[in-house]
Amino acid sequence: MTTRPDAVDGPHDPRAEAGTSAEAGVRARPDARALADRDRARLLHPFLPGEQHSRIVMVEGEGCRLRDAEGREYLDATAGMWLCQVGHGRREIAEAAAGQMRTLEYSTVFWDYTHDRAVELAERLVGIGSDDTRRVFFTSGGSEGVEIALRMARNVHHRRGEPDRTWILTRDSAYHGAGYASGELSDFPPYTTGFGPHPGQVHRLSAPYPFAAGEAPEKATDLLVHELESAIDRIGAHRIAALIGEPVLALGGMVAPPPDYWPRVEQVLRRHGILLILDEVVTAFGRVGHWYAADRIGVRPDLTVLSKGLTSGYFPLGAVVTSEDIARTLGGDGGFPVGHTYSGHPVGCAVALANLDIIEREGLLDAAERAGARLGEELRSLHDIPLVGGTRQYGLTAAVEIVRAPGSRDPLPEGTYAIADQIRDRTGVLVRGGPRALTVAPPLVLSDRETTEIVAAFGEVLSGLPVRS
Amino acid sequence: MTTRPDAVDGPHDPRAEAGTSAEAGVRARPDARALADRDRARLLHPFLPGEQHSRIVMVEGEGCRLRDAEGREYLDATAGMWLCQVGHGRREIAEAAAGQMRTLEYSTVFWDYTHDRAVELAERLVGIGSDDTRRVFFTSGGSEGVEIALRMARNVHHRRGEPDRTWILTRDSAYHGAGYASGELSDFPPYTTGFGPHPGQVHRLSAPYPFAAGEAPEKATDLLVHELESAIDRIGAHRIAALIGEPVLALGGMVAPPPDYWPRVEQVLRRHGILLILDEVVTAFGRVGHWYAADRIGVRPDLTVLSKGLTSGYFPLGAVVTSEDIARTLGGDGGFPVGHTYSGHPVGCAVALANLDIIEREGLLDAAERAGARLGEELRSLHDIPLVGGTRQYGLTAAVEIVRAPGSRDPLPEGTYAIADQIRDRTGVLVRGGPRALTVAPPLVLSDRETTEIVAAFGEVLSGLPVRS
Repeated sequence: MTTRPDAVDGPHDPRAEAGTSAEAGVRARPDARALADRDRARLLHPFLPGEQHSRIVMVEGEGCRLRDAEGREYLDATAGMWLCQVGHGRREIAEAAAGQMRTLEYSTVFWDYTHDRAVELAERLVGIGSDDTRRVFFTSGGSEGVEIALRMARNVHHRRGEPDRTWILTRDSAYHGAGYASGELSDFPPYTTGFGPHPGQVHRLSAPYPFAAGEAPEKATDLLVHELESAIDRIGAHRIAALIGEPVLALGGMVAPPPDYWPRVEQVLRRHGILLILDEVVTAFGRVGHWYAADRIGVRPDLTVLSKGLTSGYFPLGAVVTSEDIARTLGGDGGFPVGHTYSGHPVGCAVALANLDIIEREGLLDAAERAGARLGEELRSLHDIPLVGGTRQYGLTAAVEIVRAPGSRDPLPEGTYAIADQIRDRTGVLVRGGPRALTVAPPLVLSDRETTEIVAAFGEVLSGLPVRS
Repeated sequence: MTTRPDAVDGPHDPRAEAGTSAEAGVRARPDARALADRDRARLLHPFLPGEQHSRIVMVEGEGCRLRDAEGREYLDATAGMWLCQVGHGRREIAEAAAGQMRTLEYSTVFWDYTHDRAVELAERLVGIGSDDTRRVFFTSGGSEGVEIALRMARNVHHRRGEPDRTWILTRDSAYHGAGYASGELSDFPPYTTGFGPHPGQVHRLSAPYPFAAGEAPEKATDLLVHELESAIDRIGAHRIAALIGEPVLALGGMVAPPPDYWPRVEQVLRRHGILLILDEVVTAFGRVGHWYAADRIGVRPDLTVLSKGLTSGYFPLGAVVTSEDIARTLGGDGGFPVGHTYSGHPVGCAVALANLDIIEREGLLDAAERAGARLGEELRSLHDIPLVGGTRQYGLTAAVEIVRAPGSRDPLPEGTYAIADQIRDRTGVLVRGGPRALTVAPPLVLSDRETTEIVAAFGEVLSGLPVRS
């Protein structure tokens, strides 16, 4: 944690403020083993198998680095949960948050209440896109945003006299959140098994994943568009509210579609009056070299769901950006009758503004594109490794496909999760496992040296993988 | 904003940091009219009727006071959205947030990752309750917490071999959030009309509201328990996962149930293996004079949903606290397969710890009880006003029932929303309207003078209401 001089601990060490034994400038190292025991006694973690007793107790972050309670350093090639665009531990974001908390720590945006920070951030979010007529509805996160976008899509048809337009089209390998409705749009069976009923009226299309389609990429779009048209025929356009999709399938393995995929999908949807919801929770704010991936893939979504990079994860904040048309319809009559307590939180808005300032001032859109290109290039050095089926990169996202046998396109039956753990444990580089691929999406401030370190970590572990016969 | 000397603006004024024209110590007043125009152009608000063009642009808060961009001061008897236990603008919470952001601004609690702040807060949340064996699952808010609690309730039965236990019992006048599943549990028809399908399998019981039941309070529990038992008979206990309820109906009008209601309901549920989910989003952390209302109403819930007062609204954070038994079942095998990006946010945990420190150090549980008693007492002065049907108080929540005609028990057909606006506009006191009652739930730091100011505001406006014949 020594890369930035302004990161030296001062009198604001929170451990000191919390009353534990630490003097200014001296970090009391928490006892890692004791913290792990206390964690096991009191927390219930998402996705933690019952038999797994290990704990990694993170205590510090700076730039692309994290440190745990044992003093071990990690290179965070996952940017937290793909959200930390500006890197960890930015003092100016901390100051912006504290300044806003001292001034107006909370105020609602329900009814006719608003506040200066929400206004400024809404203008900013519209101003950085290619369509300056849009409007902003604030949320606290991605799942909440997807549920709001679903409600908006269905409600706008309802208000326009097409109440039967309630079906939602989604895609294989998609991830759109974890709520009862958003979770059902995610291609993630654990969300819908053993949890009682879900809303339903969801139809799943193939993902633009050449591996999955078993076809060369250049033929994929024809097949996918044909499938979409057939589904619309079968269900009936008059019953379909929207299609939701990620510009780049993130949890699906950082898969960018063929370049003609999104524009052709959009054409079909427009023809049938079906709305396009773009889930940009992962892709916005520089992740693919643009403020919004929509401007890279060449579509104009009706509803855009934002979170993660909006605050670089420093504060839970999200937004649904709508076309002016939709905003007018939803804002009519009694208004849009859904909101959450923390919608448009002033501190979240102040944090987002400070975060966007950094992205702009440091030129992180271009930096991400450059770092991504370099990462993609360096990853090619892995192509000689027997079980590497291929690598890909799009903006500052990248993936390494792992196959069952050299020359095969089949994934490992158990996925790549254990390999990700090996990379972490042996090299200190954090990457994310998945069903087919190992993925990375580092902070946009990734240095050349760190790029090389990520690729070396892949090389070290993947080249040692046993080839099964 | 002059009640606390440490609130003088210093170099951390966020407007200065955002680059607008403000020097240290000099507040540049934002142009209220321009902000309102900009708001109308760019935001979409929850629950804002299309024809309503007014905007209240809040810019500052301190203690129980808020100030808007026009310089008008408000006495916030709503504590934001019933969440600001410690009052607005607390510097030490701002410092705790900034300190944590500089140290570790984000880290996940998915899988085997954890961090020191989550461990400390989980211990604290368990330690302040009467049952020290419980476990904590972190969320980012109340709606998310209710959806998680629903998933937990259904999933624990599923894992224990009773997969048909999926029905949820809820109650009239309840509010449990705004998601597709949580919103369906809320007694709020706008959430489920014009938004497509909802999960279903929800059964609604009467609320413990003597007015609604048309019965004297002392007979209400018998009727309500009988209704519960009949519903269980009809649906079949083997198909019911849980009953969810607020200890005090908040949006329902700050209605505390008869003292024997919750213990008797709990007995029935236990007998039938039905879980009790207590939605303490409004009631926990001193609102009714205890850390948890459960300890006042005398029940031991299987799942408790927390948010709001947990951070006094300074940061979006929530938690679901489970019995050890449930935690063990859900944590078995592959673990509980649901989580959100911001679950257990380190800054949220640090903010919550600082907030709980204040509540403890300043004795705000007792203060709330004392302030509430005084408020309840002073509200009796309104009983002579013709359209006041009654007043009630429980902890630091209170309500004034407005009736259609003197001596009647019928509410105004249009509810009390416009009266709440009148009170705000004429007196500067923020209260909340509802279908039957005006409600307040001020910060727990409410002074005697402020109590009197609230009651005077009610008196001024209510005594002038026209009595229709």
